[in-house]
Amino acid sequence: MQGTVGELGEFGLIRELTARLPKTPAVELGPGDDAAVVTAPDGRVVATTDVLIEGRHFRRDWSTAYDVGRKSAAQNLADIAAMGAVPTALLLGLVVPADLPTTWATELMDGLRDECQVAGAGVVGGDVVRGETITLAITALGDLQGRAPVTRSGAQPGDVVAVTGWLGWSAAGLTVLARGFRSPRAFVEAHRRPEPPYHAGPAAAELGATAMIDVSDGLVADLGHVAAASAVDIDLRAADFDVPAQMADIGQAVGVDPLVWVLSGGEDHAIAATFPPGVQLPARWRVVGTVTGASRPGARGRVTVDGAPWERTAGWDHFAE
Amino acid sequence: MQGTVGELGEFGLIRELTARLPKTPAVELGPGDDAAVVTAPDGRVVATTDVLIEGRHFRRDWSTAYDVGRKSAAQNLADIAAMGAVPTALLLGLVVPADLPTTWATELMDGLRDECQVAGAGVVGGDVVRGETITLAITALGDLQGRAPVTRSGAQPGDVVAVTGWLGWSAAGLTVLARGFRSPRAFVEAHRRPEPPYHAGPAAAELGATAMIDVSDGLVADLGHVAAASAVDIDLRAADFDVPAQMADIGQAVGVDPLVWVLSGGEDHAIAATFPPGVQLPARWRVVGTVTGASRPGARGRVTVDGAPWERTAGWDHFAE
Repeated sequence: MQGTVGELGEFGLIRELTARLPKTPAVELGPGDDAAVVTAPDGRVVATTDVLIEGRHFRRDWSTAYDVGRKSAAQNLADIAAMGAVPTALLLGLVVPADLPTTWATELMDGLRDECQVAGAGVVGGDVVRGETITLAITALGDLQGRAPVTRSGAQPGDVVAVTGWLGWSAAGLTVLARGFRSPRAFVEAHRRPEPPYHAGPAAAELGATAMIDVSDGLVADLGHVAAASAVDIDLRAADFDVPAQMADIGQAVGVDPLVWVLSGGEDHAIAATFPPGVQLPARWRVVGTVTGASRPGARGRVTVDGAPWERTAGWDHFAE
Repeated sequence: MQGTVGELGEFGLIRELTARLPKTPAVELGPGDDAAVVTAPDGRVVATTDVLIEGRHFRRDWSTAYDVGRKSAAQNLADIAAMGAVPTALLLGLVVPADLPTTWATELMDGLRDECQVAGAGVVGGDVVRGETITLAITALGDLQGRAPVTRSGAQPGDVVAVTGWLGWSAAGLTVLARGFRSPRAFVEAHRRPEPPYHAGPAAAELGATAMIDVSDGLVADLGHVAAASAVDIDLRAADFDVPAQMADIGQAVGVDPLVWVLSGGEDHAIAATFPPGVQLPARWRVVGTVTGASRPGARGRVTVDGAPWERTAGWDHFAE
């Protein structure tokens, strides 16, 4: 297990990686065959794919391999939860340079495995190939347990908008890292290893959520997708957000309004959902706005903050420089 | 739709790509949400992932974008069929350089879509990100229709070994291309666009196949996986293979024994399976060998040809130079 993945070879690396995987309940047939077999008791399967590239989505000097594994699994498993489903399985397509230390790949797998365990899923298969740039292609699967999927398109005028999970922590941590600091730890950790509220997705579906989305690009940007798909306008109330004192302190230190992190910061993988008015939400949900009405005919549904457009860098486009 | 994917932007490209996708029966919810929802009537889902990188798995000067799409979908859908399952869905993770012509990406998607249609599956979701090297990460899903999966590990001493589909055609075509020729067309086409016998996988499962594998790395190499997983030895009879006259002619022209293409050539995505002796196989299957016995204790199951080791370049290791 010493040395590089090039020295170990394709089959040796696959052996090392799969040896680290425990058997999990939903996995009828794990890695090692043409394909894996995963239970889908609901009779439907929820599926999502994301690609992460070194330098663009993670940096080896900012995150350990283990943290990259945790985070890239989390990002996909959160998409499953945000449909109202329970994650069951994850597949990994991995591109590695031949000179990559084998330990980087095995620690990555440990991170994937551990995050899957948090979410109740198993790593069931994958592929490794050699290439110039470390690239992770992750597919997550999930089970709806008999519920209808909660899409982006069901928000109704009069619904309340609520969020659960962390908001702005990853962006604050990224700002800290980008300025060469390693603390405050809580925020740096939140950037390296988000903690999506997996259980909240299926729970929101049970509570009657009309629309739901994983907050990956920033709350305003992601609610923009809900507004567009549902053809509604959404208004958020800035005062209803929780800006922790420590986040406010960092904001002051670096000259950033922390509300920008909360409303525009990505990668925390919080969950945002709309619910019929009058819904009784568990304590970890926070109502932060309302669906104010149908969007104007021909116009894209819009998201405002205290009635005004929110134009402070929200989300990002992976193709933009 | 003119110009490059960089000019079009991430969301624009996603729009162009998903606009090309028809609704297919197994797709309850297609692209555009956090995740897709695919039917899994069997209560289990079969899943496999492959990564393909430009320069390593395809070349833009040897294959059109459309052909790359057909081939990369075929390679994954064939893995589903080789478990005895019917392909239902495909997800695409796509890495593209900003200067890639948009038409390359849309033609790729057309190829994926059309190959999925041949196999009865739908493209249900994906991700696009920018990177230096065109990379495709494909996940295919399938349904077992109530059958047990046919793994690599069920071959029994006394079983017959049979194949269906094309063998050696892709390798012969690759040899032709590598020498700067574009004909004979049939072989070049077979390299650019393999035709896996999708229906044969589920049919073999119904016929009682004890083990099955997609031939992606070469027949001897892939049967080696079956032999190892089943702890058996396999012997193939060279005379039982069909070497088409035209393939023999190319072999003579380029100084290659065509049996090397048939036994060691990859990427045709034929299906190889073992069956109990006495099985009545449909005409398109060809019996080419037998499971001679259990492998020696402590030894890896081996594959021989006419009783002798087959050491002529079989399969490849993506990490080897």
